[in-house]
Amino acid sequence: MALALAEARAAMARDEVPVGAVVLDACGAVLAQAGNGVEAGHDASAHAELLAMREAARLHGDARLTGCTVVVTLEPCPMCAAAMVHFRVARVIFGAYDSKSGGVEHGPRIFEQPRCLHRPEVVGGVGERESAALLKEFFRKRR
Amino acid sequence: MALALAEARAAMARDEVPVGAVVLDACGAVLAQAGNGVEAGHDASAHAELLAMREAARLHGDARLTGCTVVVTLEPCPMCAAAMVHFRVARVIFGAYDSKSGGVEHGPRIFEQPRCLHRPEVVGGVGERESAALLKEFFRKRR
Repeated sequence: MALALAEARAAMARDEVPVGAVVLDACGAVLAQAGNGVEAGHDASAHAELLAMREAARLHGDARLTGCTVVVTLEPCPMCAAAMVHFRVARVIFGAYDSKSGGVEHGPRIFEQPRCLHRPEVVGGVGERESAALLKEFFRKRR
Repeated sequence: MALALAEARAAMARDEVPVGAVVLDACGAVLAQAGNGVEAGHDASAHAELLAMREAARLHGDARLTGCTVVVTLEPCPMCAAAMVHFRVARVIFGAYDSKSGGVEHGPRIFEQPRCLHRPEVVGGVGERESAALLKEFFRKRR
């Protein structure tokens, strides 16, 4: 989570919404890490965890991240949660809960859908305070 | 839809699940088109409509595809439907319905979620027969 938070801080320095993510393999080694890149890439899908999963899979040479863990500072949105199903990640550890735009513990609760083909293990609220503080600071400055 | 179907056929020729997509601007001009690229890119998120939206937004220089239409041969999955919300697409026209993995008319019905921030207009079943036939042929050959 420290690495994911560092990516979130780096994203904030680039004027991106401060969210960071890391993908770990089954042994806990870092496969990829990324910060939110929506503004820089003019890509509304460039959320930190999606970028990190894509990079990890590319390096891995396999579209499936079997056994891997995604660590991300914010509860994944429905797009990213559904992508985690496609990438078959084993575990998701996230920081701040997102009652407005989250898709794991809120909204469509993607992994709890009856037709969901793969359900990663979920641990929420890890490093919640720091993750949420970064987001608050970012949106306070923007207003 | 003819262009999207051509992309789907090209995807099938590359041994990808045959789904194709096109992004049109508000005047109906083609901004981007893509076929499914999951296998080639080792990227489980490389669904045709997500690739086409990312490319259209990149060319457009804006993460929002305001006023744009996405035409895709298969009902978008929850990931792609949620991405359409992030990209703020105005309209989605899709071919075959997907009762197993669809996320627009099935499963989490992303655009009908109470917290959904943007609801594209949806027209399903356009070119349904051809789109579904391609998918059937692909999966029949695979078995």
